[in-house]
Amino acid sequence: MTFIVQKFGGTSVGDIKRIQAVADKIIEERKRGNAVLAVVSAMAGETNRLLKLASEMSEAPQPLHQDVLVSTGEQVTVALLCMALENKGYTAEPFLGHQAGIVTDEHHGKARIRRIDTDRIRHILKKEGIPVVAGFQGVTEAGAITTIGRGGSDTTAVALAAALNADRCDIYTDVKGVYTADPRICANARLLKTVSYEEMLELADAGAKVLHSRSVEIAAKHKVKLRVLSSFEDGAGTEIVTEDQLMEDILVSGVTLNIDEAKIAIRQVPDKPGITAQIFKPLSDAGINVDMIVQNVSKEGLTDLTFTVPKQDLKQSMLIAEAVAADTGAGKVEMASDIAKISVVGVGMRTHAGVAYKMFRTLADEGISVHMISTSEIKVSIVIDAKCAELVVRALHSAFELDQKK
Amino acid sequence: MTFIVQKFGGTSVGDIKRIQAVADKIIEERKRGNAVLAVVSAMAGETNRLLKLASEMSEAPQPLHQDVLVSTGEQVTVALLCMALENKGYTAEPFLGHQAGIVTDEHHGKARIRRIDTDRIRHILKKEGIPVVAGFQGVTEAGAITTIGRGGSDTTAVALAAALNADRCDIYTDVKGVYTADPRICANARLLKTVSYEEMLELADAGAKVLHSRSVEIAAKHKVKLRVLSSFEDGAGTEIVTEDQLMEDILVSGVTLNIDEAKIAIRQVPDKPGITAQIFKPLSDAGINVDMIVQNVSKEGLTDLTFTVPKQDLKQSMLIAEAVAADTGAGKVEMASDIAKISVVGVGMRTHAGVAYKMFRTLADEGISVHMISTSEIKVSIVIDAKCAELVVRALHSAFELDQKK
Repeated sequence: MTFIVQKFGGTSVGDIKRIQAVADKIIEERKRGNAVLAVVSAMAGETNRLLKLASEMSEAPQPLHQDVLVSTGEQVTVALLCMALENKGYTAEPFLGHQAGIVTDEHHGKARIRRIDTDRIRHILKKEGIPVVAGFQGVTEAGAITTIGRGGSDTTAVALAAALNADRCDIYTDVKGVYTADPRICANARLLKTVSYEEMLELADAGAKVLHSRSVEIAAKHKVKLRVLSSFEDGAGTEIVTEDQLMEDILVSGVTLNIDEAKIAIRQVPDKPGITAQIFKPLSDAGINVDMIVQNVSKEGLTDLTFTVPKQDLKQSMLIAEAVAADTGAGKVEMASDIAKISVVGVGMRTHAGVAYKMFRTLADEGISVHMISTSEIKVSIVIDAKCAELVVRALHSAFELDQKK
Repeated sequence: MTFIVQKFGGTSVGDIKRIQAVADKIIEERKRGNAVLAVVSAMAGETNRLLKLASEMSEAPQPLHQDVLVSTGEQVTVALLCMALENKGYTAEPFLGHQAGIVTDEHHGKARIRRIDTDRIRHILKKEGIPVVAGFQGVTEAGAITTIGRGGSDTTAVALAAALNADRCDIYTDVKGVYTADPRICANARLLKTVSYEEMLELADAGAKVLHSRSVEIAAKHKVKLRVLSSFEDGAGTEIVTEDQLMEDILVSGVTLNIDEAKIAIRQVPDKPGITAQIFKPLSDAGINVDMIVQNVSKEGLTDLTFTVPKQDLKQSMLIAEAVAADTGAGKVEMASDIAKISVVGVGMRTHAGVAYKMFRTLADEGISVHMISTSEIKVSIVIDAKCAELVVRALHSAFELDQKK
């Protein structure tokens, strides 16, 4: 018997009718003779409603208290989906984080899963019941409620699939799968049938919001067979597979756009050993996620250091950068938030030269100036003015012939 | 040090501002040098919102699933009150039913508390933290979420006060305490300073919605000092005390009105041993709470049997009554839902004759016909036409001079 973990996101469970449709999806798999475990998010809009209540009560609520509050969102969905399944004649068993044995560390609001005690879930599966598990939440060793960060329901689903040796983990969402580019920007964007874990990770980090990157990491580590597909339309979606399962190394799989980052440049930083650490330690201590970092070759012992941070952390990051600049005797600190990061991702880059060249040739043809460049083994990212972003995504999508079936 | 359990009902925690006012009430007691544990209900309207979601999903949701759903209401209040307390500089610790060790039986939706494992709460109290406990919910031995019935937060508060040997349990609500009659009906109704457990039980059962009767039972059994007072207005409220603490036996403490019941009459029931049991067993099996039962002296081996049930159960009760009437060879079954039950309650009745006489004299003077009569040691209840109800409450309130200070 095949055992499938199905995860349904917020829009998939956005109202009573949609939750009934989710029940039908689960029952479809059961009718194929498969065992199913469902993981659900809060109904669309619910988490934001709860966070608004919290912000009305307190400027900085204690993370534990906020976790107790927002974890009710998934609990409501769990109960309603159980009712829908029972209504259709199936036995469903609700599991909150603590009941599902999802034990995390104590970092409330962004906890990490330590282990999953699967006894109770296995017991229900053995009785042919359908476990319906609240995503996004866990419990500390001491029994306090935790949440594992936004988008965490993906992580819950993949972690459960790994712990229970599921044959597959299907992530149901509001798009048909992973595309070569955002279809709202690129009309001829193509749905990818397969993509490798490594590519998916780069795509997730680079701004394709289909899958939470932590879930891809766990899936890659535990070799969980992952699939992204639509709750609303039929179709096989996109399979995330190991590289050796790809039919051939496609040069470039996709182009992504991220407009949620801002750029900070510290001028004339003295080029001494350890100075970079000195700059990034306070940012890291403040929990700010620095993404791209670019340092130019130094001139007369001075260098310019540029990096990107989430826009929401820009203000705090500037304060830290200015303090560090003063401490280290660097020059002035500049910032820009009207920027866009565009990335070209593909495992084929490893073996095919010329991706970067083709990328810059395209940009030059369009007359675009590039602020920052950063490369990984399977990705080239650039930062440009935000106003040119969509034009560039379309130009690169065409240049790499992503609209054509491979 | 005095240790007080404070319970705040739905209207007391109805919005952010009110929850902040509740925090102030708690802090007031702390500033007096007292230790406090708070029990909270769901924000006013929240439980109904959740029940509406459930009814949209299913005509008859499984009670376990409904418990998982509605228990989120109290959880939200717990989190928000913790935030409010922390904001004002106090350490608060959230406790859901399972975290508070409130172990119940498995009757989802109307579970009974079996025991309370108080270790975690005691630990927080020892550290001078304020435990904030979700009312209305518990957990089975097997770890499933239960709720203990509507109004159950009162029961949670009193049970915790008993288990923790609290010096007092203060029930904060939207009225100033227990009145001699509903002030909306009787303009000269008087706030009672004290009332005995027995009277409070009869008053609660008879329709005074100030306190849940189960909570009064537990308070009486464990001698918990109980007080009912307003969240919104100052005042000492009403103390519920043992009979020997009452200054003197007041003849009548109050007049109550209940319009939530309907009447069913089974005509010409064969007057044989065991027939009453035969009639009420299926009602009991269906979980229908039969209140008043009146059987007339039989004539030619046949008797009329009349009883009241909650209006919401009338349809189902009629089906059962008709089936039983057919089985037992009884006559036709009649029903009426435009009725009111009025009760006169007072411990003084035990020793003073004439309460029933004065009651019927008053009714006769007003020209009211009585459908049913039922008496207990400290209560006389009558059923009359609903349209006369308010008139009768006022007439009885005057007849027993309840508007005058005793």
